[in-house]
Amino acid sequence: MSTAGITGPAGFSAGATTAGIKPSGKPDMALVVNNGPRFDAAAVFTRNRVVASPVKLSRKAVADGQLAAVIFNSGNANACNGAQGDADASALVGKVAQTLSLPEGDIAACSTGLIGEPLPMQKALAGAASVTKDLGTSANHAHAAAEAILTTDTVTKEAAYAGDGWSVGAMGKGVGMMAPSLATMLVCITTDATASSSALQSALNKAVLQTFNTLDVDGSTSTNDTVILMASGASAVSPSQEELDRAVLAVCADIADQLQADAEGVTKRVKITVEGTATDDQALNAARTLGRDNLFKCAMFGSDPNWGRVLAAVGMADAEMDPENISVYFNDQPVCRASTGVPGAREVDLSGTNIEVRVDLGTGGAGSAFVRTTDLSHAYVEINSAYSS
Amino acid sequence: MSTAGITGPAGFSAGATTAGIKPSGKPDMALVVNNGPRFDAAAVFTRNRVVASPVKLSRKAVADGQLAAVIFNSGNANACNGAQGDADASALVGKVAQTLSLPEGDIAACSTGLIGEPLPMQKALAGAASVTKDLGTSANHAHAAAEAILTTDTVTKEAAYAGDGWSVGAMGKGVGMMAPSLATMLVCITTDATASSSALQSALNKAVLQTFNTLDVDGSTSTNDTVILMASGASAVSPSQEELDRAVLAVCADIADQLQADAEGVTKRVKITVEGTATDDQALNAARTLGRDNLFKCAMFGSDPNWGRVLAAVGMADAEMDPENISVYFNDQPVCRASTGVPGAREVDLSGTNIEVRVDLGTGGAGSAFVRTTDLSHAYVEINSAYSS
Repeated sequence: MSTAGITGPAGFSAGATTAGIKPSGKPDMALVVNNGPRFDAAAVFTRNRVVASPVKLSRKAVADGQLAAVIFNSGNANACNGAQGDADASALVGKVAQTLSLPEGDIAACSTGLIGEPLPMQKALAGAASVTKDLGTSANHAHAAAEAILTTDTVTKEAAYAGDGWSVGAMGKGVGMMAPSLATMLVCITTDATASSSALQSALNKAVLQTFNTLDVDGSTSTNDTVILMASGASAVSPSQEELDRAVLAVCADIADQLQADAEGVTKRVKITVEGTATDDQALNAARTLGRDNLFKCAMFGSDPNWGRVLAAVGMADAEMDPENISVYFNDQPVCRASTGVPGAREVDLSGTNIEVRVDLGTGGAGSAFVRTTDLSHAYVEINSAYSS
Repeated sequence: MSTAGITGPAGFSAGATTAGIKPSGKPDMALVVNNGPRFDAAAVFTRNRVVASPVKLSRKAVADGQLAAVIFNSGNANACNGAQGDADASALVGKVAQTLSLPEGDIAACSTGLIGEPLPMQKALAGAASVTKDLGTSANHAHAAAEAILTTDTVTKEAAYAGDGWSVGAMGKGVGMMAPSLATMLVCITTDATASSSALQSALNKAVLQTFNTLDVDGSTSTNDTVILMASGASAVSPSQEELDRAVLAVCADIADQLQADAEGVTKRVKITVEGTATDDQALNAARTLGRDNLFKCAMFGSDPNWGRVLAAVGMADAEMDPENISVYFNDQPVCRASTGVPGAREVDLSGTNIEVRVDLGTGGAGSAFVRTTDLSHAYVEINSAYSS
């Protein structure tokens, strides 16, 4: 991908460095700076009750709708480190503020990696100082930042959207644990549009709902999930809310696609649509219940059109249904009608990478929703059983 | 195990046969007959909205608190087969009623196996006729019945309890999908005590709550789960409700232990206790949330004392907690206090088969609960990705 990512929009510079936080010796710190003239910002954080120190810090930093920079580190989540973790996150942000002469309260922090290990502060502070010296606006700078935030990701994730005289850029990381409230997912979005923080927050909320919140790889959620959107106003273009919504949605959808494709141990990408419920919320509950069912996910890994597991899973969902009138389609082929198998159902070909599952819960209601998930593979078990990964 | 199982208590006979429903050619039908003089019975069924035809039939049969027999088949769940499935379950029960000259309405049916395949009725009816000809009261007869109800189980599961002049016996099958409302689990309990159906139901409800409902292997639930308790009164002993409760709990606990030990692809048995919540229900929610978290379960497979995943998982539970005051113990060793790692936490030895995890959510409340689960292993994926298993 040759997109300019987060430095595509005017007014943003980025950089990366290898601070030595990752034992692998790969790049592990990144910085994104908004050079203005405006500093409007919005963010969405994990809904997990247990939150990492950088999440607590960033929530406060963005509370006034203004951000000037975001400091990232990978290899250590700085979560569950108590008061020391909070102090470390503050010190890191303080270092960036001091070096760039920015107000400390306008800098957010994002960390990803192992939970419960103290952040190696000598390395992190040296890294924070170092990364400020190599900031630039090139696509290479953006790409280096996108690389430095990765953990078990196998590829960098960047996206771009071109408006009429303005643009949006994004980078993200995340490979598993993408659930209702995001998870182990960091996304940074930049735009040179002129937009108030409330307009940005509105666009971001809608986009997250339709993209990251429809991803549910394993039902787990992280202590560190953060999506940050910053607007420099450098284009002097003020898009309508509708245009802004469309642009933010576009880059979020693109990053979400890349996250799903790179999810841990994935061999199948599964889109689950549920319809025929009274409300969209009920359809979403049922889609999530199916998307988290390990027996269903194992069947997808085995390319097995075992629609019985679909019925067994949705039967437990918090959604009204007609248990005698459920329909199931695999890749648009009917496999179950009126809760009964269709002849030939076992022969449906699910050997491809992409599988579409559609379930009608049979109440005649107009509710519908979808989630995107993955199969449950040997590689998933392998990656996630490795010692303190 | 040389227990007499379901024929231990006086008044019960059992038998098994190979009807050819299983492609493997292994025994696949069993019959348990209560010879009286009393026919009091109680049952607990799956909470799944999608229920198999035999569950619908058995619910009706036991509604009057009386059962004279239960016909079992393995290899086919007779679920999601529409009106034909209901008719087939009725025909099977009708065949047993006719052969044994019993009222059709006093016979329950239990099926387990693949969902959505019509029951091969010619084989099943011949099997039902055949099994009635080889009924007996020996331990071998009980054992043959216990064997004929297995699916992917690797061992038979039987239990016994000796009261003062009366006894209880049990058999069960089930290897995965053991969740809040049981799952792919069939259990038959017999007693020669004299007890009313309401006394039996009360004992069964309490026992299921403390045993099968604390098992949560993968959060999935089945369309066919059934636990049936029949009392012949042949001992002429009327135990107190307390004695009955204790006896039914004992055999249920024994069978539940055997189910957990034989769960699909298990390499670890994990007991999760949650305390420090306002109510027991909240503790149970948190214990279940942790027990279903795939990242946690993969860590258990890897013998990895990754307590950060415990915090990340319980942080999403529907339970009040103090996110800054959570404690975690692995095998009684503290690994996390005040939501912060304890020195040496990463060195805790989890290499044994049994792992105890205790979590205090830090509210100071007296609520507590436990669930028993397993790790998520390569073998689990292997078994459950096999084509239409």
